[in-house]
Amino acid sequence: MIVESDINRRKETRSISVGSVKIGGSAPVVVQSMTCTDTRDIQSTISQIHRLEEAGCEIVRVAVPDVEAAAAVGKIKKAINLPLIADIHFNEKLAHGALEGGADGIRINPGNMPRESVRRIIQDARGRAAALRIGVNSGSLEQDLLDRFGHPCAEALVESALRHISLCEELDFHNLKLSLKSSHVPTMIDAYRLISAKADYPLHLGVTEAGSLLSAAIKSSIGIGILLSEGIGDTIRVSVAGDPVSEMPVAFGILRALGIRKVGPDIIACPTCGRCEIDLAGLVDKVERRLAGMKEHLVIALMGCVVNGPGEAAEADIGIAGGRGKGILFKKGTVMRTVPEDQFFDVLVEEIGQMIGRKV
Amino acid sequence: MIVESDINRRKETRSISVGSVKIGGSAPVVVQSMTCTDTRDIQSTISQIHRLEEAGCEIVRVAVPDVEAAAAVGKIKKAINLPLIADIHFNEKLAHGALEGGADGIRINPGNMPRESVRRIIQDARGRAAALRIGVNSGSLEQDLLDRFGHPCAEALVESALRHISLCEELDFHNLKLSLKSSHVPTMIDAYRLISAKADYPLHLGVTEAGSLLSAAIKSSIGIGILLSEGIGDTIRVSVAGDPVSEMPVAFGILRALGIRKVGPDIIACPTCGRCEIDLAGLVDKVERRLAGMKEHLVIALMGCVVNGPGEAAEADIGIAGGRGKGILFKKGTVMRTVPEDQFFDVLVEEIGQMIGRKV
Repeated sequence: MIVESDINRRKETRSISVGSVKIGGSAPVVVQSMTCTDTRDIQSTISQIHRLEEAGCEIVRVAVPDVEAAAAVGKIKKAINLPLIADIHFNEKLAHGALEGGADGIRINPGNMPRESVRRIIQDARGRAAALRIGVNSGSLEQDLLDRFGHPCAEALVESALRHISLCEELDFHNLKLSLKSSHVPTMIDAYRLISAKADYPLHLGVTEAGSLLSAAIKSSIGIGILLSEGIGDTIRVSVAGDPVSEMPVAFGILRALGIRKVGPDIIACPTCGRCEIDLAGLVDKVERRLAGMKEHLVIALMGCVVNGPGEAAEADIGIAGGRGKGILFKKGTVMRTVPEDQFFDVLVEEIGQMIGRKV
Repeated sequence: MIVESDINRRKETRSISVGSVKIGGSAPVVVQSMTCTDTRDIQSTISQIHRLEEAGCEIVRVAVPDVEAAAAVGKIKKAINLPLIADIHFNEKLAHGALEGGADGIRINPGNMPRESVRRIIQDARGRAAALRIGVNSGSLEQDLLDRFGHPCAEALVESALRHISLCEELDFHNLKLSLKSSHVPTMIDAYRLISAKADYPLHLGVTEAGSLLSAAIKSSIGIGILLSEGIGDTIRVSVAGDPVSEMPVAFGILRALGIRKVGPDIIACPTCGRCEIDLAGLVDKVERRLAGMKEHLVIALMGCVVNGPGEAAEADIGIAGGRGKGILFKKGTVMRTVPEDQFFDVLVEEIGQMIGRKV
């Protein structure tokens, strides 16, 4: 009953391609996001996509609410490296426009797209080797399902997805991924568990409308975290009301905490208490800021006192166990030397730079 | 396979008392924290405890690293309402001092307390009807367990706890709760699952040394969230390197997201995208700040566009689905009226005030 091995045993799903990025099969869990710029403002959108890429984002989605936005897709696509998904609602023509502009995938919402339209989008996507996401959402279920189930429960979300899966399968189209997002975390968990038992397409996990950064971190960590820990999920999106770049530390934090992808520093730091005689919270803040965006994985323990400090610091790649105005520096379980408190930050930056072979 | 009902089916544990607060049995999951002030600084400690209580904290712990801190416990206890736990390491005498001062419970760490000392602490606690927490931590395991298991794995944490449980049971002492904290989330999850299968004492859940607020929110939401969703856990602590008051929104956010305790507003808000024509992130921020500390539970949907906006707003207690420069106000599923964007905040504050029967 070792959880970590369970966690790493993912349900095997079909492997699909979104541009150059593989999702499902044996591919790592992919982190994605969506721009919050006006897609028609091409420069702002490109600039936000570059910032997302810099922060680790691996696939990006843009809203395509009108013809002008659909026309912008081609220009955006030419200026970015990430695979690009066009988010389409209501209007089939926008999907064709985005595909013509080179979109690597289309996200459609079964709740607001007639079956005949979806059929033509599938045929267009197939011709261009683009992927399709069937993106069900608790806020936009088909009316007949709401009438039948009474409210957007897990079973209703699953039924909505299955309808469109069968349409794709009729057309022998399988470059497909699924999302069944709810703003209600237990419903989201249940919907993904149910669909995972019924379909083998890769799953895009997310809690929808998860709110501000902290709220989104809590809801997404629970919802996405529980599913990933059960081996369910091939790509994730943390939805934050705010700058989407802020989603990246949460997404990679979830993957790192579960041992699924070891990207970026893992900072172990005690909450401090009446025993702590150093400014630990200040040190944690400085170190986090300095290492923001670092991709190399290191476990860094910043500890306030002798109770758990030496133990945690010894388990980490590098650590400081503080005492009164000084601390003991550990590297890979070995005590290196005593460091005065005013040198903690500089010593850590220097040593971490040496460990990863570049200045931080 | 409805998750929410599973989530609410908690494993039945013994009911214990920490001062006036029940933990385990059929009691709600209790939220607790720990001061980060110098315990000897009585005024600062009392003031932080009052701020914690105001923010929803239900039990508070203080570090007792020396005789002066033990002597402070009595004075702190007289000035606060919350049950008070003294955190004791290494030195048995400090436990007796804290109990004499009226501490409602003692947390000991099996890794650094001789068996004979624990025996005397138990006898002292029994005489005063105080509770005991056996608080195992990955950073301070007994050396023989580290030698035997090689590193602080789940099985080693469990073994450490079982040793002290048996000592308590020999002395027929059962006013006991357990924690098996690790800074490694999968280890923490596994340790609690294992101990939950072997013991029926209430469990205090926490990911130890979880780092800064965002990091702690991610790790704690996953670790505590997975366990609570399995019915494991009777009291929780989110450990943040920083002001412990900041732990409260995370702790209650976890409980709310899982439907375990409905305390405080649940703000559903979309991440916005190229469709959004209102300043949604700004509105979310203003509403969150205004409602900070609100205990009444309301689902409030703040949505940027027509795709999911009306659907989510209709499911919420109150919601606004934005359009260009205006939005539709929903209450309990009914469309109330159209509101201009510059009045969103005032209208929400007014309506929420009416719903909960007091100004917000």
